[in-house]
Amino acid sequence: METTAAVTLNDIAKALEDADYFVILTHQYPDGDTVGSAYALCRALQKLGKHARVIINGSLDRKFEFLRNNFKEETFTYKTVVSVDIATEQLLGELKPEFGNIVDICIDHHASNSGFAKLSYVNARAAANTENIFELIKLLGVEIDRDMANAIYTGICTDTGCFKFSNVTSATMRAAAELMDMGCDSSEINRVMFDTKSMARIKMERAVLESLTLHADGRIAVVNTSLQMERETGVGDTDMDGLSSIPRQIEGVLVGVTIKEKGYQRYRVSIRSLGRYDACAIAASFGGGGHHAAAGCTVCGELEDVKERIVKAAAAELDRADSV
Amino acid sequence: METTAAVTLNDIAKALEDADYFVILTHQYPDGDTVGSAYALCRALQKLGKHARVIINGSLDRKFEFLRNNFKEETFTYKTVVSVDIATEQLLGELKPEFGNIVDICIDHHASNSGFAKLSYVNARAAANTENIFELIKLLGVEIDRDMANAIYTGICTDTGCFKFSNVTSATMRAAAELMDMGCDSSEINRVMFDTKSMARIKMERAVLESLTLHADGRIAVVNTSLQMERETGVGDTDMDGLSSIPRQIEGVLVGVTIKEKGYQRYRVSIRSLGRYDACAIAASFGGGGHHAAAGCTVCGELEDVKERIVKAAAAELDRADSV
Repeated sequence: METTAAVTLNDIAKALEDADYFVILTHQYPDGDTVGSAYALCRALQKLGKHARVIINGSLDRKFEFLRNNFKEETFTYKTVVSVDIATEQLLGELKPEFGNIVDICIDHHASNSGFAKLSYVNARAAANTENIFELIKLLGVEIDRDMANAIYTGICTDTGCFKFSNVTSATMRAAAELMDMGCDSSEINRVMFDTKSMARIKMERAVLESLTLHADGRIAVVNTSLQMERETGVGDTDMDGLSSIPRQIEGVLVGVTIKEKGYQRYRVSIRSLGRYDACAIAASFGGGGHHAAAGCTVCGELEDVKERIVKAAAAELDRADSV
Repeated sequence: METTAAVTLNDIAKALEDADYFVILTHQYPDGDTVGSAYALCRALQKLGKHARVIINGSLDRKFEFLRNNFKEETFTYKTVVSVDIATEQLLGELKPEFGNIVDICIDHHASNSGFAKLSYVNARAAANTENIFELIKLLGVEIDRDMANAIYTGICTDTGCFKFSNVTSATMRAAAELMDMGCDSSEINRVMFDTKSMARIKMERAVLESLTLHADGRIAVVNTSLQMERETGVGDTDMDGLSSIPRQIEGVLVGVTIKEKGYQRYRVSIRSLGRYDACAIAASFGGGGHHAAAGCTVCGELEDVKERIVKAAAAELDRADSV
């Protein structure tokens, strides 16, 4: 495998069939989609009689540990490197020095995929990368067991906010239906992923809500977190997931801002917007970036000053969009 | 129509075709499923050239108002009474005196349906009653437009917690997929139903979290609301929806209890449990009832005393279930 090329899922299936001794890499800060992709594919390759193992890139959140149930851990020297749900080699993080230049096969769903692998299948219509893995495993002719179905379902439900986000398509829903017919534990997985919060998270939400301020007639909402709050509540990385969506959820709010203290007078700012209001434009005015509805930037200074500057930029974006 | 009978959906379609001048009733405290059922069916009957109108039983929550977009309001004297998503005539509430004994056709998905109507179609496998309505409209041969698809989708997503609850089947997912292919505004509906909170609700959640206490080594969580909190936050009925699920969501909690002040020394207690722990048994010891995982009762006395008695009953249920 020497060329960089955009290929079909059939080409990927063929390449997997022709190779062996697979190591499957997840992206750093592994989420349900990358981990689900890795375990589903690894199990499928093992069922084909291949040698395959998974490298979880960072620590595996406790809620994903069930994906290892009945999983066969193998040790061997790898010959073929596969990456799943990884858009660029930067997202390999600590694995980049070893694997950055030698990824043979990349299976991904990010339109921004940089084509860093020798063979890349990128289907950005898939809400979750496990939708791609699901199709791939069918092409490989492997019978999908419950553990594989659970891994695929986990990717789909976590990457779609339990079928809530705008990335969901009818194909996503039909894939989930098929997995349910295969006996996947959808309802228990949903409960663990979406209906369980750590006490630390609960405390953090309470603290975040206490910090809430509204601006521009309630059209801008700002919350903030501090390192002290993180220490006092004992939150971990995954406990912080989704906090940034809280201010924008408030009725009437068009731009929601979450200011997270990262160090002395250094703040990571997450911006979420509705409709025609451009979060990315606000972030860009502080040297940040992202998407239209979700963007971020790093801002330095006194908290109150940072807050004031962000609110001012957000108010300017409201005015701009309303005057178009 | 003189007999009470369990019938097929085909029988219902035939009965609707043979009748006219329909009034379609929702249950009291109307939710997305009863309202979605009513508007979807009413639009379908109007498309068949029939006269049909909807009676919303109580006030229509603002978030459901879009279901009236492009809706033709008709006035006429009704001849045929249809109820949707109504298990018993009690749930007609204020409409019971006029309609309690004269419902011709009932379309429902509650296994507990009392058979109060002359013709009843009850399909309890449907997660939402709009799944039944969807099939019915197909049988009627009416082309489903976007407004009807939106009404059907609204019922499905609201009755399943956006495809999260254990009532979801692969048929539910496939119905949603079909509706999405028909162009329903699934992602916008999801946002309005699941990603928008009133400021009053946010304040109420904050107050509820502040009241949180853990018991029995963190296996029992208790929160409470007071009439004063309701006044101060300005919450309405729908703002209180789902508050009862908060304590049970905490990691490690097996029984979650929400104690709502209803009057002087009078409390409505909602109990949610996981796995083998029986919420209904706890509620029953106070003369209440419900389901295995969700039950309720009314308890009178001083708040602290009520709390202590409930915690004691919940702890006894933990011991009972663990000793089986």
